[in-house]
Amino acid sequence: MSYLDQIISPTLLLDEKICRANLQKMAEKAKRHKMNLVPHFKTAQSKEIGRWAKECGIKEITTSSLSMAEYLSEEGWDRIHIAFPFNPLEAARLDQLAARQSMSVQLINLATTQKLVDTLTHEVGFFIEIDAGYGRTGVQVSDFGLIEGILKTAKKSANLRFRGFYLHPGHTYYADIPKIYEQTRQALSMLKSKYRTEYPDLVTRTGDTPGCSVTEDFGDIDELGPGNFVFYDLMQASLGSCTKSDIAVAMAVPVVDIQAGRKEILVHGGGVHFAKDVLLDEHGNKNFGEIVNLTQSGWTLRNDGSHLKSISQEHGIVKASDALLAEVKVGDILGVLPIHSCMTADCMGSYLTLDGKKVDHAEG
Amino acid sequence: MSYLDQIISPTLLLDEKICRANLQKMAEKAKRHKMNLVPHFKTAQSKEIGRWAKECGIKEITTSSLSMAEYLSEEGWDRIHIAFPFNPLEAARLDQLAARQSMSVQLINLATTQKLVDTLTHEVGFFIEIDAGYGRTGVQVSDFGLIEGILKTAKKSANLRFRGFYLHPGHTYYADIPKIYEQTRQALSMLKSKYRTEYPDLVTRTGDTPGCSVTEDFGDIDELGPGNFVFYDLMQASLGSCTKSDIAVAMAVPVVDIQAGRKEILVHGGGVHFAKDVLLDEHGNKNFGEIVNLTQSGWTLRNDGSHLKSISQEHGIVKASDALLAEVKVGDILGVLPIHSCMTADCMGSYLTLDGKKVDHAEG
Repeated sequence: MSYLDQIISPTLLLDEKICRANLQKMAEKAKRHKMNLVPHFKTAQSKEIGRWAKECGIKEITTSSLSMAEYLSEEGWDRIHIAFPFNPLEAARLDQLAARQSMSVQLINLATTQKLVDTLTHEVGFFIEIDAGYGRTGVQVSDFGLIEGILKTAKKSANLRFRGFYLHPGHTYYADIPKIYEQTRQALSMLKSKYRTEYPDLVTRTGDTPGCSVTEDFGDIDELGPGNFVFYDLMQASLGSCTKSDIAVAMAVPVVDIQAGRKEILVHGGGVHFAKDVLLDEHGNKNFGEIVNLTQSGWTLRNDGSHLKSISQEHGIVKASDALLAEVKVGDILGVLPIHSCMTADCMGSYLTLDGKKVDHAEG
Repeated sequence: MSYLDQIISPTLLLDEKICRANLQKMAEKAKRHKMNLVPHFKTAQSKEIGRWAKECGIKEITTSSLSMAEYLSEEGWDRIHIAFPFNPLEAARLDQLAARQSMSVQLINLATTQKLVDTLTHEVGFFIEIDAGYGRTGVQVSDFGLIEGILKTAKKSANLRFRGFYLHPGHTYYADIPKIYEQTRQALSMLKSKYRTEYPDLVTRTGDTPGCSVTEDFGDIDELGPGNFVFYDLMQASLGSCTKSDIAVAMAVPVVDIQAGRKEILVHGGGVHFAKDVLLDEHGNKNFGEIVNLTQSGWTLRNDGSHLKSISQEHGIVKASDALLAEVKVGDILGVLPIHSCMTADCMGSYLTLDGKKVDHAEG
C-alpha cells in the first residue's frame, strides 16, 4: 500500500532519503573541517530522526527548550544542550533532568547563573552566549565584565561547569554571510585565546543553517550547531543554503474545490498546519508554499509557479498554473513545500515517511 | 496556591469570567434578535468551554475540521457543523462520526456532494456555502445552476439533508461592516425566499466576529456562527469588535534577560506559542502582543506601549516602557495579550484558568 493511501487530511510527509543525505552531508562537512556537529533539533524534534543522526556519527544535540530536551533525553546522547538563555524558573526541573541525562545550558546574566548555583545538585555544563552583532540575545562580545562575572558566579558551584562560548549569527538570514562569518570567527577566536589558559577544554560553537551550509572557512571554531538543514525549506532555498531538491518535507493537502475561472484550487491546509511564514516575490506577491506533484515514491518539483497564495486557519488557496488546473480534480492530494519547515513541523506534530511509517515529533 | 505558582514556562491563561461573559453577551444578542447562536469552536476547541456555552443556552456548535468535530462530539450537542468545504477523502470517517453525533457539513461542488451520496449510511445535514464577495470559498450567490445541481445531487441520498445557506463574510476584517452586512442580508434573504417553498425548514447562517459584534441589523438571517468572540484578541480590539478588557486569554511568559540599554526584555515565548500574526502601527512597527501585568486574580492592562516587537521560534523581545523596565527582573512572569487568539490557542493546546485549573483543547 502506498503512503498516499493513508492520507485523508493534511499530513506532513518526510522523505527519509533526503533527510539522511542532509544529515550526512553536514556531518561530512564538519568532519572535513575537524569540527564537532551538534545539530539543533528544534527543527526535527524527533527521536527517530535522532537515530538517523546517530548513524552519521552525531553524538550530541541541541534543543530550544527544556521540555524538548526532556522529550529527546535518554536516547543515548552524550549531551543535550538547550540553546536558549536559560529560564531560571526551570532550574529545579533542569536539575531533575540532569540526574539522568548529561545536559548543558546557555547563560547570559548573573541572576540566572546564581539561580543555578543555588539549585543544582547534578552537574550541568554551560555556554556563555555571545552577541557579535545579531542583537537578539547574548552577552556583548566586548563585555568582559559580564563574562567574568558569570564565570566567577558559576565557580561557586561544583555542579556548574563552563564549556565555552556559543554564538548564533542569525542575521545570516538577512545579510552578507562572508562578512558575518568573519565577525563570528574573530569574536570566538578572541574569546578562546583570552580564556583558554584558565579553561583549556573550552570550545566555541556557532550554527545557523545559511552560514553552515555555504561557508567553508570556520577558522578555529570547534563546533557547528545548525538546525534547519535537517529538512531545509523554501526560505533556505531562496537564501541559497540549498536547492529545492534538498527539501526533505512536504505537506500533503486534499483538494476540496477548484475555481477554474480564478485559476484557484482550494485545499485543506492552512495556518494551523503550515504556520504563517511567507516569502514575497519581487512584486510583493505572497507565497505560503510551492506546489509539488506527489508520486508513489515521493514528490517531484513542478517549477511552474503554482503556489499557496493565501492561507487562513484551515483554508489554503493555490494560485494554479493552467497545467495544474488541467490535471487536478476534487479529492486529489497535492504536495506543498513549506516556507519554514521548523514552524511547520512544530504545527503538525508528526511525520509520515514515503514508506508509510509514522515518525514521532515532540508534543506541544 | 495562586495560579502563578504553577507557571514555569509559557502558559496560556484563560479568564473564565471574561470568557463566560463573552459567551453570555453574544447569546443574549442572538436571543434579542430571535436568532440561533451556533458558535464556531475553531477558537476555543475545548469541551470544558463547550460546557460554559451550554450554560448560556447554546445547543449547537461549529468546527473547522472533522478531527475537531470528533474531539468535541458526544458532549450532548444537538448538532456539530463543519464549516469548511467538505473534504471528500473524509467521507467514510464522517459517516462513522454521524453514527454517534448529529452532524452537518458544507458543500460547494457536485463532486463532493456525489461522494457523500455514494458513502453515507447515516444522516448528515448540509449547508451550501455562499460567496457574496469575500472571494475565499463558496458558490457565487447568483450561480443558481450550481446551487440546484448540488440540491438535485443530494436528493439521490436519503441520508443527505439540506439545511440551508451559510455565508462567511470574512472581509469584515478588512472593510466596511455595514455595507458588507447589507450584501450579506440581501444575499441570504434572496436565497431563502427562492428556496423555502421547496425547503420550508431551511435556515440561513452568517458569522464573523467583527460583524456579529457590531451589527444590530441581521434582517431575516436565522443563525449566527462567530468564533473568535469567545476570547477576542488585539486584532478584534483594533477592529472595534471589543475592548481590550474583553480579551479572555493572555500568555504568561518568563523573563529570561533584560537589556536596559536597549529598553528590551527577553522572554521565553515565540512563534511556537503565539503563532506569528502581527499588527502594524501607523509607522509600520510590528506588534506581536501587548504586555499586561499578571496579578493574583488575573491581569491588568498597562496601556504604556510595552509590546512584543519581534519573535522567533522560542524567543520574544519586548520593547519595554521605562516604567516596565523599572519593575521587572529576570525570573518574573509577564502577561501578553495575543494578536490572534485562535492561532495562539491552537499552538498552545491547553489553558490554565486563574483558579489554577487546566482546561482542555483539541490536539494537533
